[in-house]
Amino acid sequence: MKLETLRDLYVEQLQDLYSAENQIIDALPKMIESASSEDLKEGLQTHLKETEQQAQRLEQIFKELGAKSKGSECKGMKGLLQEGKELLAEDAEPEVLDAGIIASCQRVEHYEMAGYGCVKTYAKLLGFSEQVKLLEQTLNEEKHADEVLNEAAENINIEAKAA
Amino acid sequence: MKLETLRDLYVEQLQDLYSAENQIIDALPKMIESASSEDLKEGLQTHLKETEQQAQRLEQIFKELGAKSKGSECKGMKGLLQEGKELLAEDAEPEVLDAGIIASCQRVEHYEMAGYGCVKTYAKLLGFSEQVKLLEQTLNEEKHADEVLNEAAENINIEAKAA
Repeated sequence: MKLETLRDLYVEQLQDLYSAENQIIDALPKMIESASSEDLKEGLQTHLKETEQQAQRLEQIFKELGAKSKGSECKGMKGLLQEGKELLAEDAEPEVLDAGIIASCQRVEHYEMAGYGCVKTYAKLLGFSEQVKLLEQTLNEEKHADEVLNEAAENINIEAKAA
Repeated sequence: MKLETLRDLYVEQLQDLYSAENQIIDALPKMIESASSEDLKEGLQTHLKETEQQAQRLEQIFKELGAKSKGSECKGMKGLLQEGKELLAEDAEPEVLDAGIIASCQRVEHYEMAGYGCVKTYAKLLGFSEQVKLLEQTLNEEKHADEVLNEAAENINIEAKAA
């Protein structure tokens, strides 16, 4: 694909995020299964449902744009999730593993915050006001998910320290 | 390495960030060279110097902890930078490429914000007050670098739109 216009970049970035969301949907169940804290499990479960809706929002945007949802595989998210997978394979105390899972998920959330921040700005400049609303909704969910992880971390890190 | 304690996780995460910083130091010059906007070039150049100092701060922390700086390669950053490299190889208009470089660098900044946020919290819990200060300094620089990119994006995105 040639990147001639901001619209081209917008579509490419949306495809990157769509790939990222789908990779997260595949990877989160194993994270949830490996977590010990009920709070953490619950928080991640809620976020898995949100992630499915976020992917659907992107599908709606692709439809409106008349663009394909499939682009290149998101290599950034692939690396982040690979890191998470390696963490789960480590010989870890449950409380320490939970703290590590949080650290891993916060990297994922931050990837999405950066990505959705960009596409929201592009959508605004391109005059796609309905799409701005959809992207903003997702961006707010990502920020909220990060805060939920921060809250969960408060207890879990203390437990990990006592481990 | 076994993750038995929060300290183990702290060291592992510091090593991850050290690997990330060094990968950024290797990758940024090519980004700077490929950017067209003088503002963007300058902002990234400043951040390259900061990144070198951030790596040195981590070396100081490893020394204090009596820990090795070398751990696993940071796969998350590897993926993010791979994505950036692919962007630079695309057939793009200069203004659109600049907007893409900003999007790519913001993903990198956000990785570091998430990572340094975690290690700062661990250092606090573990009572390493001097290390908290060093990590906070880096965290603030990362946040500031992200804001600088946001400011640069304001003009560059408009130019990309007009491309």
